[in-house]
Amino acid sequence: MKRTDLVNNILSKGSFLCVGLDPDPAKMPAALAAKGADGIIEFNKAVIDATAAYAVAYKPNLAFYETLGADGMRAFEETCAYIRSNYPDQFIIADAKRGDIGNTARMYAKAFFENAGVDAVTVAPYMGEDSVTPFLGFDGKWAVVLALTSNKGSEDFQMIRDDRGTRFFERVVLQAQKWGTPVNMMFVVGATRGELIGDVRRLAPRNFFLVPGVGAQGGSLEEVCRYGMNDEVGILVNSSRGIIHASNGDDYAEMAGNKARELRDQMAAILRERSMI
Amino acid sequence: MKRTDLVNNILSKGSFLCVGLDPDPAKMPAALAAKGADGIIEFNKAVIDATAAYAVAYKPNLAFYETLGADGMRAFEETCAYIRSNYPDQFIIADAKRGDIGNTARMYAKAFFENAGVDAVTVAPYMGEDSVTPFLGFDGKWAVVLALTSNKGSEDFQMIRDDRGTRFFERVVLQAQKWGTPVNMMFVVGATRGELIGDVRRLAPRNFFLVPGVGAQGGSLEEVCRYGMNDEVGILVNSSRGIIHASNGDDYAEMAGNKARELRDQMAAILRERSMI
Repeated sequence: MKRTDLVNNILSKGSFLCVGLDPDPAKMPAALAAKGADGIIEFNKAVIDATAAYAVAYKPNLAFYETLGADGMRAFEETCAYIRSNYPDQFIIADAKRGDIGNTARMYAKAFFENAGVDAVTVAPYMGEDSVTPFLGFDGKWAVVLALTSNKGSEDFQMIRDDRGTRFFERVVLQAQKWGTPVNMMFVVGATRGELIGDVRRLAPRNFFLVPGVGAQGGSLEEVCRYGMNDEVGILVNSSRGIIHASNGDDYAEMAGNKARELRDQMAAILRERSMI
Repeated sequence: MKRTDLVNNILSKGSFLCVGLDPDPAKMPAALAAKGADGIIEFNKAVIDATAAYAVAYKPNLAFYETLGADGMRAFEETCAYIRSNYPDQFIIADAKRGDIGNTARMYAKAFFENAGVDAVTVAPYMGEDSVTPFLGFDGKWAVVLALTSNKGSEDFQMIRDDRGTRFFERVVLQAQKWGTPVNMMFVVGATRGELIGDVRRLAPRNFFLVPGVGAQGGSLEEVCRYGMNDEVGILVNSSRGIIHASNGDDYAEMAGNKARELRDQMAAILRERSMI
């Protein structure tokens, strides 16, 4: 999906919500959980149907599918195919955090963009240029580079200062912009510390940010928008557990829809305040 | 597999060779390539049978399987199962370079250790402690943390110096040792610059190193051993393309066996020189 289409979808829906499709059988109705990969497919389809009106993107995290082996990968593929067929205006992000040497990275890029047909893949920067650029050569496809993550461990390396005082996550954001542009590269910027989102925004004024950590991980939507938005919105805010596992009963899809609508309403209010819609 | 068993296997075979199972259909006999995932399984089994006498470890890179979707994951699983059943003394490394927040990292660890049954998983350090430690809690299983990779892009971030002059890959090696020990953590240390392997060895005297980059990527076995070995050998040297695609004809397995034997002979000579066998 092209950047202009993504921005138009956000503005027409009044939403920059990304729904994380990280289905945890332990939090699903027992009858569905017992069905393994088929249960996950059924669960995802119901959640997607209930939330698509309020979201502009879906982000399946591959770990939740790989844990079921080949059957899980089928669930991932069928989930992506279902979204593409029924909701073609949704942006699909494979949250895979891949990063490998050039020829291997090309295999991953082909697997996700050509076979699974997703719009974007999250990519880890540690291995540098040739691990990222293979994801940039597909028309309308995106690399989403990890910059500042929302977990506790983000302190361990991302905050290290180099000999000029620049933090490592800032080095990543500066260096990666030599490889990609605002039409094929986004950054993962965690929601847990608002002022840091502002630091990334100053370094990358036009790139979209994928912002995890709102909801279950404690980030505030207001703060994310204050520090992270640009004049084309420029953020996709992800919520996973807070939406898809809002209920572990048979009303899981209805409750997911309610949670997604609540977030959409908050997002629309923010966009209206800023006269963007 | 426990560390003592791995060291014993190395000494009894006179080999610290890891065979990278990264099957590229374009370099396989056409009749096999045409069979998709089944062709890859057949190819891998023949390569394993031909090389097992000379190797102590196998390292399938997940990208080469994921590129075939669910079918490819089946090929990965069947390959691992074949090794476990027929060559139970082989150490299996899933080269997946995973790294995600704690609860997600746990899913990956379970998928690889419990479902696929591998001994080790390569892990990217960028997200810090909670992305690595979930791989450390399984008896006889290992996290192989990326420290210094063998690709050109390794220059981009791994060589950055912090405000005390310590390079980033050194920070990773120091920090990671606060989480893991020499019995559950190895490091990936690329072969392309020998003296850098020595730098890592000084920081991590007892950990095993998984050394890619010998062969197709240009690293020298002699140099790797001079800088990387410790008194328990302490290195697994990987070769992928140089072995499994030594021939693209019907003699691929025989040629893979020949290449593996050549490397084993060189390794055994080095171990004998050092009076380790």
